[in-house]
Amino acid sequence: MVESLVMSADQPFSDADRLAIYRAIALRRDVRRGFTSRPLPDEILKRLLSAAHNAPSVGLMQPSRFIVIRNDTTRRAVYDIFKDANAQARELYEGDRKEQYDSLKLEGILEAPQNICVVCDTHSQRGHGLGRLSMPETAAYSTVCAIQNLWLAARAEGIGVGWVSILDPARLRAVLRIPEHILPVAYLCVGYVEEFGTEPDLQRAGWEKRVPLETTVFYDFYHAESRP
Amino acid sequence: MVESLVMSADQPFSDADRLAIYRAIALRRDVRRGFTSRPLPDEILKRLLSAAHNAPSVGLMQPSRFIVIRNDTTRRAVYDIFKDANAQARELYEGDRKEQYDSLKLEGILEAPQNICVVCDTHSQRGHGLGRLSMPETAAYSTVCAIQNLWLAARAEGIGVGWVSILDPARLRAVLRIPEHILPVAYLCVGYVEEFGTEPDLQRAGWEKRVPLETTVFYDFYHAESRP
Repeated sequence: MVESLVMSADQPFSDADRLAIYRAIALRRDVRRGFTSRPLPDEILKRLLSAAHNAPSVGLMQPSRFIVIRNDTTRRAVYDIFKDANAQARELYEGDRKEQYDSLKLEGILEAPQNICVVCDTHSQRGHGLGRLSMPETAAYSTVCAIQNLWLAARAEGIGVGWVSILDPARLRAVLRIPEHILPVAYLCVGYVEEFGTEPDLQRAGWEKRVPLETTVFYDFYHAESRP
Repeated sequence: MVESLVMSADQPFSDADRLAIYRAIALRRDVRRGFTSRPLPDEILKRLLSAAHNAPSVGLMQPSRFIVIRNDTTRRAVYDIFKDANAQARELYEGDRKEQYDSLKLEGILEAPQNICVVCDTHSQRGHGLGRLSMPETAAYSTVCAIQNLWLAARAEGIGVGWVSILDPARLRAVLRIPEHILPVAYLCVGYVEEFGTEPDLQRAGWEKRVPLETTVFYDFYHAESRP
């Protein structure tokens, strides 16, 4: 598919095309609930992985690897890792905040029709090290670009994606047999959903509110006074 | 704009919408040459920053900050940082590979109509630490998601983006007055371009070749034997 898309490189994007992209960006959600049991067809999964694989990578290193979890035992083992990490995390909070934390749904590991662990081969010699001497972290960043591509493509397919970060990476490595030189970057819960929220789950739950763009933009230097 | 886009959350994406998104993903390039002198209108810049700002963030932390460089002295100082880091990087290579390295164009700092440094406030208390106890690196990853949003939106606007990672972060901090607790993530060169390449610059130059998706997908566990 990519090949045929690339043939259209000369054609500019129309207003409708641009709107579709801005809509996917605005309507993408971190999904943890409301997954339907409808399975993810192999063809659609491949389309999503292909979107991820087409992401930019430092030095054309392409360090992203995708572990597609098809085994229920593995999935349950990952859920146990989440439960322990979550129990530890809730101890950060007290009083009302702790109660609120307990009421949040922070993963969809067992409900989502598909789990995918995205890892980064940070030691790959592909790309011959280009762009990584001063900032070696750009290998992992390349993998995050891949994840964001997958997330947006999924939204346009009506598929929800939730990124679970409440996991002990060492235990995740053990369960998924991830070698030392491979970095676990994200554990994703993926599947068709009943609906997408119009605002982030954490905002709806009153955990945090989004800030306006203006508070994040600076001119020439990073200091509060340069804000417009 | 975001508000009006969100109102359409119920409307599914059409085939044409999906195609637009897959095209942006497939046709996005890391652009280092061919910038035109056409300035980037404030309205379009705001649209791109807004796309970035709408990215997912761990715990709804929204840690991304955008330093829009409007000062030519700053830009030249960053270019000097690149030159030194690049001189160091070329020493990694020998013989033909070194000659090839020297022939690559790896940044567009002075030519691009706009430079933007994207940084991450890793210490922000927004989001109340949610999702960051086991994997604190997810703060920086949130900022990378923002960059990828900007990159795709830019492609649809006919605007090229190049990510320069051959920069000493400590010197970049000094020039842009970035405090210790703020992490420089990316330095972007942004502007309208004459055309977008149909393949990555580094592939065209013979530096590296893309690998097929199949080599990056594993099932259940990370080990070469699980490859399809």
